[in-house]
Amino acid sequence: MNSDVVGYIEDNEQRFLDELKRWVAIPSLSADPSHAQDVRRCGELIVEHMRDIGLRSELLETLGNPIAYGEWTASDDAPTLLIYGHYDVQPADPFELWDSPPFEATVRDGKIFGRGVVDDKGQVLMHLAALEAHLRVDGRLPLNVKVVIEGEEEIGSPSFEAFLEHNRRQLRSDVAVISDTAMFSEDVPSLTTSLRGIVHWEVRVDGPRSDVHSGAFGGIVRNPIEALAQMIAALKDANGRIAVPGFYDGVMALADEDRERLQGLSFDESAQAQALGVPQLSGESDRLPLERMWYRPTLECNGIWGGYQGPGSKTIVPAYACAKLSARLVAGQEPAAIKRSVEEFLVARAPLGVTLNVKSFSDVRAVRTSHDHPAVQAAARAVEAGFGKAPVFIGTGGTIGPVSSFDRILRLPQVLIGVGLPDDSIHAPNEKLNLRQFFAGIRTMAQFYDELAVALRR
Amino acid sequence: MNSDVVGYIEDNEQRFLDELKRWVAIPSLSADPSHAQDVRRCGELIVEHMRDIGLRSELLETLGNPIAYGEWTASDDAPTLLIYGHYDVQPADPFELWDSPPFEATVRDGKIFGRGVVDDKGQVLMHLAALEAHLRVDGRLPLNVKVVIEGEEEIGSPSFEAFLEHNRRQLRSDVAVISDTAMFSEDVPSLTTSLRGIVHWEVRVDGPRSDVHSGAFGGIVRNPIEALAQMIAALKDANGRIAVPGFYDGVMALADEDRERLQGLSFDESAQAQALGVPQLSGESDRLPLERMWYRPTLECNGIWGGYQGPGSKTIVPAYACAKLSARLVAGQEPAAIKRSVEEFLVARAPLGVTLNVKSFSDVRAVRTSHDHPAVQAAARAVEAGFGKAPVFIGTGGTIGPVSSFDRILRLPQVLIGVGLPDDSIHAPNEKLNLRQFFAGIRTMAQFYDELAVALRR
Repeated sequence: MNSDVVGYIEDNEQRFLDELKRWVAIPSLSADPSHAQDVRRCGELIVEHMRDIGLRSELLETLGNPIAYGEWTASDDAPTLLIYGHYDVQPADPFELWDSPPFEATVRDGKIFGRGVVDDKGQVLMHLAALEAHLRVDGRLPLNVKVVIEGEEEIGSPSFEAFLEHNRRQLRSDVAVISDTAMFSEDVPSLTTSLRGIVHWEVRVDGPRSDVHSGAFGGIVRNPIEALAQMIAALKDANGRIAVPGFYDGVMALADEDRERLQGLSFDESAQAQALGVPQLSGESDRLPLERMWYRPTLECNGIWGGYQGPGSKTIVPAYACAKLSARLVAGQEPAAIKRSVEEFLVARAPLGVTLNVKSFSDVRAVRTSHDHPAVQAAARAVEAGFGKAPVFIGTGGTIGPVSSFDRILRLPQVLIGVGLPDDSIHAPNEKLNLRQFFAGIRTMAQFYDELAVALRR
Repeated sequence: MNSDVVGYIEDNEQRFLDELKRWVAIPSLSADPSHAQDVRRCGELIVEHMRDIGLRSELLETLGNPIAYGEWTASDDAPTLLIYGHYDVQPADPFELWDSPPFEATVRDGKIFGRGVVDDKGQVLMHLAALEAHLRVDGRLPLNVKVVIEGEEEIGSPSFEAFLEHNRRQLRSDVAVISDTAMFSEDVPSLTTSLRGIVHWEVRVDGPRSDVHSGAFGGIVRNPIEALAQMIAALKDANGRIAVPGFYDGVMALADEDRERLQGLSFDESAQAQALGVPQLSGESDRLPLERMWYRPTLECNGIWGGYQGPGSKTIVPAYACAKLSARLVAGQEPAAIKRSVEEFLVARAPLGVTLNVKSFSDVRAVRTSHDHPAVQAAARAVEAGFGKAPVFIGTGGTIGPVSSFDRILRLPQVLIGVGLPDDSIHAPNEKLNLRQFFAGIRTMAQFYDELAVALRR
């Protein structure tokens, strides 16, 4: 590794942390329309930061939240790397479960806590810190870069594909790097080569026009909570297998070599159950946990509400009940078909006496990427340099919509170098990033740019 | 009827309405501890009002909310009537569904709208107005009265039995009158002779220690919403019959004469469905709707919540899910046994991977009262005088805990003269009381005191 670059990174660790705290302080929640101005303000802050470190940068409008865009051109001959990340974050509630305020990033025990520290503000900053190190030490970058930091990843990137279509020429690149995933463990550096897709539904069951007295009308009016509970209960069988007809169409059985790879990775079920705080793990009992997490689809109820939720009791049959559902998809599943199957399944099970309304949205295919590409090999060498150990190839159960968009629209090979850890509590209270991962990640990225410049030299 | 008393009532109608508005303005919600001071203030207001009309009155402390107590002694020889009502009210949410503010009682189209106008502030005032009329016109009452207005009826009257035990001597009476029920319809004045009982449960299902990312952990962790939905779904069979073993123990089949009585009452199922805003009525299809409402037990989910309920989506497996359940009981059912059966049923169905917690509370037996008692006959004559038509005897699906307490502790015969109507939206937005019912109710009570003084003369 370039020791001057490594030295620069070490000398500026505290400043990088301070910068991350500034980013976290802006509650850039894309799911909640009341935070639209915060989202934009966060995009602007990142544009300014890119300018400060020496990139040409601007806020690019989309149909939704803007993109913080930056670029630096080494030469027309050099290969071009597209760096993708997102500056929007998940909601932070329930607030009372955070040990420190979610939007005041706080360092404790070698970790920084706050909403977005790892998903994905910290990992975006990792790239900008590595670019800054190269630019300050060498006055230049070893390749061309185009930095695309979006503001709608946590809501399924609804404007991103149109943005790519519209800016196809400007975004032309040789490879994309995405840092929005986790490593297998602190001791097992890894590169991710498969991601699950996602679709969402909102379900609403309407009963009586308004809440009615359960004494006066209990016995003659269908309870919408009960109706909704029956529909949700029907979605899976006793073994956790999804009961919706056609749901598993196109899902491939695990290959023997993949099963061996999974069996080679240590996974302590009881330690995992303890870490999650559950009596035991669940799911399809005839499959490996890592298979269930990476290579099997899911169907989850993410939220439910209806009737009286306050203190004490209120003896009503409620007017309505609602639920949010989402499915994680694997390679081979067609999002549009899954949407339709679940909708039809629910409609067929709506009991008499209530009215059902199902809306589906978001539409992200699962992606598997090859690990034979020279860019993936360059990434493996960079991770080894940054973390001191060769990475293993893993899957992830999460979804990064833009990965499938880059695949489909720009036809870009992609490298997923994430430095998160499985216990980072992303999308949950007390989200954190280990400082060791953060700083090793910055060194990895600095090395990755050098490796890639060589690997893709024309 | 005593035409001077009737004249006094007519002359003071507007003042009675103004008084009711003052009572409604105090949000005396017993279910919500944050309103404890409002509850007490409402009790004090009623004590003051009783003093103003000439009763000896005081606020009596209990283990919970105080009782507004008043009395007037005609003579030691006269019969004594205990008048029961409650000044606490149900919560008013969802506020946005009210056409006028719930705590600013508003007259529209011959009706007064507001939380508590009929359940039960308006019906309490009906008695106090009738007592006032007698006292102002005659300077005396035809019998002794003891007025007991409690502040915990809407939460199951937890302190009421201890209060009765403790004040057994002071409350000694010949009969109790309770005005907290509805008539069959505006055209069919009625007296209620059966009430359902009630028990409540709160159910909490805990999954992971905090909300976790549905991509990272979806497939290995049991979703607590799903687990709760499965338990709720199992509570009833497809025909709406409760599937909990032992639930129907002691429930008697409807007698032929009762069935004939029900069939003689007009009940338009499609009009009722339309009024409720549902496509059709539900419940046990092999039983009459009035049977289901009055003489069959229910088990309802009154509220449910868990996971993300905000705008957009949040892709989590939530940490927990909760539900509130309640059952309406009929004569023959033992509340303690019902509590235990439902708890055992839920515990037996809690899936692996989650932790279940079930609490039960409230404990009110169903009551059937005889209509042969001279006081019930006196009530029937009073209703005929007040409403111009002889009443029919009906049941009600609701629960009035104190009715069963009077029965068990004071061994008092009881008369239920309510003037509400089925479309009054009690426990719901836009609760109302028809002014015609209110004023006819005041006349009925004034007559009832005279009838009772004669009927129970020693």
